[in-house]
Amino acid sequence: MAIDQLVSAIIGKKNPCIVGIDPEWSQIPEGYKANGLSPAETVLQWGCDVIDAVADIVPAVKPQMAFFEVFGAEGLWAHQQLVAYAHQRGLLVIYDSKRNDIGNTARAYAYAHLAKDGPINADFLTVSPFLGTDSLQPFLDAAVKEQKGLFILVKTSNPSSGEISEAVNQQGESICDWLARTVHTMGAGCAGQSGYSAIGAVVGATYPEEAAKLRSLMPNNFFLVPGFGAQGGTAETAAACFQPDGLGAVVSSSRGILYHALDVLGFDHTPAMYREDVRQQALKMQQAVVGALREKCSRMCY
Amino acid sequence: MAIDQLVSAIIGKKNPCIVGIDPEWSQIPEGYKANGLSPAETVLQWGCDVIDAVADIVPAVKPQMAFFEVFGAEGLWAHQQLVAYAHQRGLLVIYDSKRNDIGNTARAYAYAHLAKDGPINADFLTVSPFLGTDSLQPFLDAAVKEQKGLFILVKTSNPSSGEISEAVNQQGESICDWLARTVHTMGAGCAGQSGYSAIGAVVGATYPEEAAKLRSLMPNNFFLVPGFGAQGGTAETAAACFQPDGLGAVVSSSRGILYHALDVLGFDHTPAMYREDVRQQALKMQQAVVGALREKCSRMCY
Repeated sequence: MAIDQLVSAIIGKKNPCIVGIDPEWSQIPEGYKANGLSPAETVLQWGCDVIDAVADIVPAVKPQMAFFEVFGAEGLWAHQQLVAYAHQRGLLVIYDSKRNDIGNTARAYAYAHLAKDGPINADFLTVSPFLGTDSLQPFLDAAVKEQKGLFILVKTSNPSSGEISEAVNQQGESICDWLARTVHTMGAGCAGQSGYSAIGAVVGATYPEEAAKLRSLMPNNFFLVPGFGAQGGTAETAAACFQPDGLGAVVSSSRGILYHALDVLGFDHTPAMYREDVRQQALKMQQAVVGALREKCSRMCY
Repeated sequence: MAIDQLVSAIIGKKNPCIVGIDPEWSQIPEGYKANGLSPAETVLQWGCDVIDAVADIVPAVKPQMAFFEVFGAEGLWAHQQLVAYAHQRGLLVIYDSKRNDIGNTARAYAYAHLAKDGPINADFLTVSPFLGTDSLQPFLDAAVKEQKGLFILVKTSNPSSGEISEAVNQQGESICDWLARTVHTMGAGCAGQSGYSAIGAVVGATYPEEAAKLRSLMPNNFFLVPGFGAQGGTAETAAACFQPDGLGAVVSSSRGILYHALDVLGFDHTPAMYREDVRQQALKMQQAVVGALREKCSRMCY
């Protein structure tokens, strides 16, 4: 099961931090662009280099589909190759596409993204819950069938995230809390040997107080924690998403790792220099987050 | 502007009904599959046939991305070809993908789907609002820049749609009504010559009472109305989404038009028989919806 593989990889690598792969064309170093490849081939080569730079450090990568869709069909091809390469390098893939729809449409999305015989074959998929529980069911069914996992949006990291998530439903519960309970209930039947469920939640690193409450509502659901670095989340705020054993969450950073080199080295650095910078930033993030966990977690298991 | 083209096409064709293009592989007639083409090529040929069958009847088509993603990069290629073919046949394209994200990720999605120099170049995009107004802004910016349009999910057609949309926010307003006001406010600066805004709303045909209220909250925003036919929406319930001039909404049907032939003819019908059946179902839908509008609309303009 993907969730057990994720837990093992976190313990084995002593790292709950993952790297988002967001190929923004304007931010990709010139050294990757000057070799006669098509844009999608360039993105693939760059993405494989990012994977090579962090493969022994992180448990998983999180490609962001939007930045591949910019290149159309060829972008999706690059994305598929990148997922396969990440698997080849022993990494799990959290596919961040926030898909959402109903009935047979939701089934089609779930198949496309999670099925072992489908085109993408990611290990986890992020899903938006706006359409309600019947829209989540086909994704849950696919996750169970394929032994993969979901991260359902519960509390995102952006400033407007409370507009809907803080509204109160007819049972007097905030949408955020109701979603947390829904994630916990939906995931109750598909816990792995680690005790963690295949169904997790997206909980932004920028709202630590809510994270602590959500942690208690979802004791055995994994959190995918975006918003670290560029969006203002810190190791300390992210730590609120973890259990006392230092498990229960993965913290994701994209721009802070991918585009740090641009800030310090400018555009004209070599791929080798770029890989080294990505690696150093990933190590720095691991050090910060694991450091904060050692402060906070009473029975850290790695 | 896309919204003015849509209004003109509805008046010109005397039809506010559109056809959803959902290539479910198991539902595509055998006659399309037995010719040595790849699955994605088969889907493209089938989709072009659907377009040919209805091009002179409907103002727009609505391809559902999920069913193309099932075929991976080749599916996206087929999708791009299909959008181009719809444009060639004079049809507008409403790209139903319910994308949602924040900041530069939302910008990338908006570029990929709406930009005239992007890979897809659809005329309208459906967007999910779960992450709040800051997540909608990049899509709004792209729609304004490209003279395209959006349909933001406000009230969807499925049974669970009220779980979030009926919750009440801190101002005492339901999420559904708040979204309607947000759509109206966001769209205020981008009305076309028709008076209708480039920013519209998805409002299911299955909730006619709410539709009437939403109509009053969004007087000059177009509605995309799914749920007709297979999901239980009727011409009469859909009519609640229109203004007294018979404008202000497009009603979408997918399965009721695409897969009717399967029910009455079985799998072994020829492409010619299939095209004729699709055409007849589209004409029947037009007749039903326009008939209901003539009953309801006091100053029908077509």
